Amino acid sequence: MSAPRQTPPPVRFKLTIAYDGTAYQGWQAQRVGTGVQELIEGALAKFFPSRPRLTGSSRTDTGVHALGLVAQFAVPRAEFRLPIRKLALAINSALPADVRVLRAARAPRHFQARFDATGKQYRYQVWNSPTMNPLLRAYAWHVPQPLDLTVMRAAAKMLVGRHDFRSFTANRGAPLEDAVRTLWRCDITRRGALLTFVLEGDGFLYKMCRGIVGTLVQTGYGRFPVDAIKTMLARKNRCMAGMNAPARGLVLWRVFYGRRPPSFRRPKG
Amino acid sequence: MSAPRQTPPPVRFKLTIAYDGTAYQGWQAQRVGTGVQELIEGALAKFFPSRPRLTGSSRTDTGVHALGLVAQFAVPRAEFRLPIRKLALAINSALPADVRVLRAARAPRHFQARFDATGKQYRYQVWNSPTMNPLLRAYAWHVPQPLDLTVMRAAAKMLVGRHDFRSFTANRGAPLEDAVRTLWRCDITRRGALLTFVLEGDGFLYKMCRGIVGTLVQTGYGRFPVDAIKTMLARKNRCMAGMNAPARGLVLWRVFYGRRPPSFRRPKG
Repeated sequence: MSAPRQTPPPVRFKLTIAYDGTAYQGWQAQRVGTGVQELIEGALAKFFPSRPRLTGSSRTDTGVHALGLVAQFAVPRAEFRLPIRKLALAINSALPADVRVLRAARAPRHFQARFDATGKQYRYQVWNSPTMNPLLRAYAWHVPQPLDLTVMRAAAKMLVGRHDFRSFTANRGAPLEDAVRTLWRCDITRRGALLTFVLEGDGFLYKMCRGIVGTLVQTGYGRFPVDAIKTMLARKNRCMAGMNAPARGLVLWRVFYGRRPPSFRRPKG
Repeated sequence: MSAPRQTPPPVRFKLTIAYDGTAYQGWQAQRVGTGVQELIEGALAKFFPSRPRLTGSSRTDTGVHALGLVAQFAVPRAEFRLPIRKLALAINSALPADVRVLRAARAPRHFQARFDATGKQYRYQVWNSPTMNPLLRAYAWHVPQPLDLTVMRAAAKMLVGRHDFRSFTANRGAPLEDAVRTLWRCDITRRGALLTFVLEGDGFLYKMCRGIVGTLVQTGYGRFPVDAIKTMLARKNRCMAGMNAPARGLVLWRVFYGRRPPSFRRPKG
């Protein structure tokens, strides 16, 4: 009367990952170059013979950085032998210094880093001074022209809310079916010559952050009037908005799960 | 009755220089590698046929960064043809991106970047978290142990004042004749996992900043009691103090000329 042997369900893990994107073709490998995903999968393979696939919350672009990307993987229960508190340390020992697993934790059985995400925060750095700061050359965009922060903040405010952001995403060939996203935060702070843009929303289209920052900076030096933002959103055409800010200034800062993050402010109107 | 022809005095310039020290053997070249000084001298030679020598305010060590090093050079008046407001731009066009001239200005005839300096500010960054931030790996020291900031600040306070800092300088072979310096600021601030040490004084001995930061961090995790700082100063022996913090966390932030900087606080007692 022995019960039939059942395979126990696989064990699922959630990783919080930071990387300097300078040397990588983004999260996913392109035709050439290395993706951060395959790099970490290589490290996982040293500890888990089943060579688990890693699925990330976001597919950051070439050269973009991350301090809080979330990813999940699953392994057969039999392979789960390392104590969980040592897992991040073990994976890091097999990674180069520009990629770090900040936290490794057990995840609920059906956790999906990408589809369960309820929001994301990106930050973008601009060095606004005639000469670039050499210590920030890999982490900020150098904008030498004087910028009118008041004008930029007024423009940023117009982007907050639920909009069709088609005008701010790069065309990847295929027509975009749904470009409606909610941006609930678009702040700009200044500390000396360093401007930091904080963008938070329920989802970001391909190169959307960089399109927004590029357009706001161009508004700041007079290339567009503040009201142009309204027209850009209304026309739903990439040619209407401004330039893409370079990748090196962008950091995927945090991915939110569960309830809306505390900084959510309901857009007016 | 024509006056005898006199050679006009040379024209003197003051440069404010920033660099990422990662790739360099410090300000001055060692037996191997490249120094920032010779790199800028190479750029100057493209604009000034007399190939002027550059004299810096400080000789930063291998791997140490700078955001406000000051240097001077002089050229015959006949070679001074570029408008001064274009000089920094011109020199930068002949430099790699990790070295920048932030400002170029005419200097008084007898200005000496090194001997006229009345004070210097150094900053040191520590990333105090179990895992390193990959974006700071070239600009901060990773200290994974928990640090007691209260204890560290008490220890830092004991270093402020006029002291013989022999115990905090690395021995370069030759015996040190005068090791008395005034440190008028030694602050530690925390922003998340990032600690920033701000050290200001009338002069710093070889590796003195790194000796101080290393000792304070070791005090922060219990290697030394706070009072040990007093003994270290009194003994005037390098073996008494703690470790040297690594070069990559250190930035020569600013060099002061003329009157004492506004942050000067007269040490008590």
